[in-house]
Amino acid sequence: MFKRECIVGIDIGGTKILTVVADMHCNVLAKVESLTNAFEGYERVIDRIVSSIYTALERAGIDVKEVCAAAACVPGPELDVKKGVVYFAGNLNWKNVDLKEILERKLKVPVFIENDANSAALGECLFGAGQGTSDMVYVTVSTGIGCGIIINKKIYHGASDSAGEIGHMVVLPGGPACSCGNRGCLEALASGTAIARDAKELAKKGCADAVLKAAGGEIEKINALAVAKAAKAGDGTAKEIFYRAGRMLGLGLANLVNLINPSLIVLGGGVMKSKELMWEPMEKEFYARAIKRAGQNVEIVSAELGSMSGIMGALAIARSYIE
Amino acid sequence: MFKRECIVGIDIGGTKILTVVADMHCNVLAKVESLTNAFEGYERVIDRIVSSIYTALERAGIDVKEVCAAAACVPGPELDVKKGVVYFAGNLNWKNVDLKEILERKLKVPVFIENDANSAALGECLFGAGQGTSDMVYVTVSTGIGCGIIINKKIYHGASDSAGEIGHMVVLPGGPACSCGNRGCLEALASGTAIARDAKELAKKGCADAVLKAAGGEIEKINALAVAKAAKAGDGTAKEIFYRAGRMLGLGLANLVNLINPSLIVLGGGVMKSKELMWEPMEKEFYARAIKRAGQNVEIVSAELGSMSGIMGALAIARSYIE
Repeated sequence: MFKRECIVGIDIGGTKILTVVADMHCNVLAKVESLTNAFEGYERVIDRIVSSIYTALERAGIDVKEVCAAAACVPGPELDVKKGVVYFAGNLNWKNVDLKEILERKLKVPVFIENDANSAALGECLFGAGQGTSDMVYVTVSTGIGCGIIINKKIYHGASDSAGEIGHMVVLPGGPACSCGNRGCLEALASGTAIARDAKELAKKGCADAVLKAAGGEIEKINALAVAKAAKAGDGTAKEIFYRAGRMLGLGLANLVNLINPSLIVLGGGVMKSKELMWEPMEKEFYARAIKRAGQNVEIVSAELGSMSGIMGALAIARSYIE
Repeated sequence: MFKRECIVGIDIGGTKILTVVADMHCNVLAKVESLTNAFEGYERVIDRIVSSIYTALERAGIDVKEVCAAAACVPGPELDVKKGVVYFAGNLNWKNVDLKEILERKLKVPVFIENDANSAALGECLFGAGQGTSDMVYVTVSTGIGCGIIINKKIYHGASDSAGEIGHMVVLPGGPACSCGNRGCLEALASGTAIARDAKELAKKGCADAVLKAAGGEIEKINALAVAKAAKAGDGTAKEIFYRAGRMLGLGLANLVNLINPSLIVLGGGVMKSKELMWEPMEKEFYARAIKRAGQNVEIVSAELGSMSGIMGALAIARSYIE
């Protein structure tokens, strides 16, 4: 008879899948990375997840019968946490995938499903920048802008598991088009995609030579990273693009704080790797817009777990199965 | 020995004070209305509250020794619910008033203090349009725009009792000035004050004759009620003012729903008495802006308790003292 005292965490991203095996204190015992290759279809992706889990277990010297529970975080925006169904995940090209049921059948352990931003929020709250806080918001600024709300050390899901869509908060009606079909969403103004779009538009007009150079001379290769590179090298145009994105982010965070009044905001995601380009305008706009008492009572800090925040949250969710 | 089985609710508004005595089921036994007359200073206002309570008790044939607890709701925006201190209430001209301590000393019963929009949210949740719902948001559109968030049938306060300030969500950067010092807040675009301001500006240009007539011919007397009167009589300019306010309200509600994902929004406040002038543009903008799953899962309805929502919430808070 095996004692079930291990847990499995899975982070299913658009590019890669991260799988870890951990003890009941969420100490990682083994870690496996594989490519998502979503174009192959969800069955193949799930097969790859399962084989990653077996690889990780093998590396940790653990039998699957010792696994108490597993949890997977997936990009939204549409999933049902209780049923474990991914209704729609654009990055994975998934529609109505019964992920919980399929993984439980293959692994024969209880499996939980969570939105990736929510999972990262929980990870940062319990193991990262939010340790010691029970109410906080995690905002990830990356290709898109996502958010997870933690109330009393638990993920706040809302009525239909859609809470936290700060990326689709309209902050500039009539502003630039967003991937969601609307205009002026925060995501369309302050995400990596927005930064790249603004730079491309300027490059097409011949107004962003330094950025273009940083992208290897091809307009289509301009991304937020190339803009950041040019900005860090001192290019005024690139700095201005980040400055404006920072201001809009600050405005969005003020709206969030005025509504939810958290004690902590943790900022993560790829764009935040260039946070020095955005932080000052972000704070300036935030403090100008937040109501006094709420603004004074919130701290804004950087995430601490990097690419591990989502999977650490998944481990906490798996562990909570036996608590 | 008296059995303590009565509760007292107090609603302290900028214009009037409402005081009720109720049984433990929150059935109102007696009700007293008096003028606030805030200009006389907080001591006199509190004296008037106390004498209103005694009048209400007398009318209900109840001795103060039978009162189990009392709760008062006050206009914010800055108060500490636990300490019972009103740091700042613009409408009352109060600063740092230790309301809980003063009332407890005078009444010799436990007293609780709550923000008026929060209290109204709880009132509507337990006794009004939100019955049967455990997670909802109450939004009041009046002179200003306030909001109370209910999670699991309890008021969600946030880190410093400031949660729910939807009125100061910026939805149009660079838009009209708000009383808070910012620009483009929802309150500056969709409140009764905003409606009156827009109408006055048009009247000054000679473009709002019907509204001006409804206000008795004096520009300074134009208020949201006069605009509503003209709109209901068919005036296009007045209808357009409400239409635009309705659209901005819908946008603000979509931002709220995208972030909090409630199952119900209850709309109250004076401006909502003319809801037929705003509801269609509000819904149109809301459904265009809300993310699909969150928008599909929320119902938007009118408040049911009218001017009693705040005080019914206060009664529920007083009752919870013995639960």
